[in-house]
Amino acid sequence: MKVIVITIGDEILIGQVVDTNSAWIGQQLAYLGVAVSEIKTIKDNNQSIKKALEYGISEADIIIFTGGLGPTKDDITKISLAEYMGVDMVFDQGTYDRIVDIFVKFGRPIKESHKHQCFMPTNATLLENRMGTAPGMLFDFQNTMIVSMPGVPYEMKAIMADHLLPMIAKQIPIDQKIYSRTIMTAGEGETTIEENISPIIDLLPNTISVAYLPSLGSVRVRVTGRGEINTIKSIVDHAINQMSAVLGDIVYALDGISLSQAIMQLCIEKNIWVGTAESCTGGFISHRITSDPGSSSYYVGSLVTYTNELKHQLLGVNNKTIEQFGAVSEQTVIEMANGGLKVLGSDIVISVSGIAGPSGGSEEKPVGTIWMCIANKKEHFAFRINATKDRKKNIEYAGNVALNALRKFILKHY
Amino acid sequence: MKVIVITIGDEILIGQVVDTNSAWIGQQLAYLGVAVSEIKTIKDNNQSIKKALEYGISEADIIIFTGGLGPTKDDITKISLAEYMGVDMVFDQGTYDRIVDIFVKFGRPIKESHKHQCFMPTNATLLENRMGTAPGMLFDFQNTMIVSMPGVPYEMKAIMADHLLPMIAKQIPIDQKIYSRTIMTAGEGETTIEENISPIIDLLPNTISVAYLPSLGSVRVRVTGRGEINTIKSIVDHAINQMSAVLGDIVYALDGISLSQAIMQLCIEKNIWVGTAESCTGGFISHRITSDPGSSSYYVGSLVTYTNELKHQLLGVNNKTIEQFGAVSEQTVIEMANGGLKVLGSDIVISVSGIAGPSGGSEEKPVGTIWMCIANKKEHFAFRINATKDRKKNIEYAGNVALNALRKFILKHY
Repeated sequence: MKVIVITIGDEILIGQVVDTNSAWIGQQLAYLGVAVSEIKTIKDNNQSIKKALEYGISEADIIIFTGGLGPTKDDITKISLAEYMGVDMVFDQGTYDRIVDIFVKFGRPIKESHKHQCFMPTNATLLENRMGTAPGMLFDFQNTMIVSMPGVPYEMKAIMADHLLPMIAKQIPIDQKIYSRTIMTAGEGETTIEENISPIIDLLPNTISVAYLPSLGSVRVRVTGRGEINTIKSIVDHAINQMSAVLGDIVYALDGISLSQAIMQLCIEKNIWVGTAESCTGGFISHRITSDPGSSSYYVGSLVTYTNELKHQLLGVNNKTIEQFGAVSEQTVIEMANGGLKVLGSDIVISVSGIAGPSGGSEEKPVGTIWMCIANKKEHFAFRINATKDRKKNIEYAGNVALNALRKFILKHY
Repeated sequence: MKVIVITIGDEILIGQVVDTNSAWIGQQLAYLGVAVSEIKTIKDNNQSIKKALEYGISEADIIIFTGGLGPTKDDITKISLAEYMGVDMVFDQGTYDRIVDIFVKFGRPIKESHKHQCFMPTNATLLENRMGTAPGMLFDFQNTMIVSMPGVPYEMKAIMADHLLPMIAKQIPIDQKIYSRTIMTAGEGETTIEENISPIIDLLPNTISVAYLPSLGSVRVRVTGRGEINTIKSIVDHAINQMSAVLGDIVYALDGISLSQAIMQLCIEKNIWVGTAESCTGGFISHRITSDPGSSSYYVGSLVTYTNELKHQLLGVNNKTIEQFGAVSEQTVIEMANGGLKVLGSDIVISVSGIAGPSGGSEEKPVGTIWMCIANKKEHFAFRINATKDRKKNIEYAGNVALNALRKFILKHY
């Protein structure tokens, strides 16, 4: 099955809006084992839409349009599609009734312009939109399945989930089903991971594929099988178990759970409370942790000590330590962590101090030099990383490394 | 000038990565008054790249490729381009020397595979990449300007800024120049802003356009003119002055400066030190502030007190206050701010406490109820906002509102 996704919208072409719809559609179809072969973003005018439709019909089995169906966009998409297919527009009472219902419920006035919204190409099958007023539309034209949906992300997602994904899943032959699982790792690069699991991969049938998805400080390993569902499920599950065993403690979770979520599960299970003492990460680790709902079950808070005075005053870091070794040093992060344990009262504290950049570096400690420490009342583990010259990347990378070190510290000592 | 942007990468088509490069390119070209007419994302194989190139040549004056030039992607892009144009590949000693320099500096070994990276199509003009090892390439082929750049965002941006944007700017005819300025506002919606400035807009010639770019808690107003540069410059500058005067203190800066950067300028100028005492924002405000290089010149740090115990213990919030009014209350945020002033020693403290969600809401205080306070030793200003049900949005929105309240507090009292 060849799929082209076409996003309609000038606001994307001039960079006001980043097109996240296409990525989401690509991901959902990939889960079904259907690959998008091209994504196109075009202007929202009649000519561009017709041209893209013509291109899509010549190239693909399925064309998915998003954007250009809302009340303000003046229905350019559906008129252009109808004109290209040579069909008329007809008033759809059902759509109008739904709009009236919604507007009455919210006490908003119905305008004459809402009637325009209800004219649909005569050959369209309407796909109900439970999140908005404009329904999706499905066409079967010249052996191509053409779908058109609003550009509002949650409306598009609802129509995809309710109608389109089940429809496409059904079209996949019984012996061509897809089953996919993911191993979440942190702390090793793609190359090392690949070396470790390649003996397992070598023994897999060629219906199973393995992909590496790296990001700052972590790599996801996705194992996907295609075939008869029970057969591939047992092969993929077995491979996931074998790989997890070989990879050991760099595996922090399976199947899409984030590092901070994995830590939350671990801490709640073991009744561990965590706090942070941050300097160069400036509250980012705390922000990462508290972005997860439920984090108040294990996280107490953070002392973001951006000045040396606060490191001394709040965390009890000795002024002499800072003088002698510097604020970015093993000694300082150890004292920060110990101070944090006392002041925050948590079981474990993460401390971080480094040179995020772009300035502040020296020959001995260039930009990107970051020290961190994980400590409880008995043990501590301090180490240094050498990150990049990019301030934002350094902050994010240091946060990921610190969270992974916390996870390993818990596994070792609890 | 017709421009097509082509992004190469399977990882975008399967939704692993969102294509932010194209949006950035669209934006930068829009500033020059050049509109991107189409964005295409294609597979990273020889056939797809050649086909996209053929399509681009038939449609556009400028084709901008990103992606597929790194050391791991095996140079598929440049080989495909060279094959399509019928030219050979030649080893470029300069590129190899640069790679060797960089690797020696970082003490990493040079591999044989790095030599492959240095073969370039004979008709390519190389564009230096100061952020990485793979240079950009420029071709003049069949009356089309073809550019190919790495997909790593900061490398692509450096090549665009250093080479491509100046080159394209020069090609714009003298009477078609673009001049654009932006008013940065926070605290009012698009509709109110439009109402206030519409008398000014009505008097502008039709060579001048006005666009509104809203985001969480702020709206940017962009005024763009096209024509002879001195004429449009004086009209746009005059309009910007008039609009700024009418909009008053919702304007926090001109021309792309962020809210936190505007606050940094203000604080450094007036010698004000700022600290934060955060609960529901969990360190996000601190993270926003410390993401700016130079923030250590006015920001001391944050007490992220996620538990009630720490609000009491670190910030001195009275336990009775929390019992009687709750942790999310005017009284609590006032006491948090006052406690922060004492402990952090800064001139001003921002405090925030709210229900970020998804759980924790009640009839009286639903999810999205957020109290905040800005205080110095003499004055305080506490207020409540009602945000959404979405945790991440609430955190971000509360951060933006708090920063804008800080700015207004400084303007009023300093």
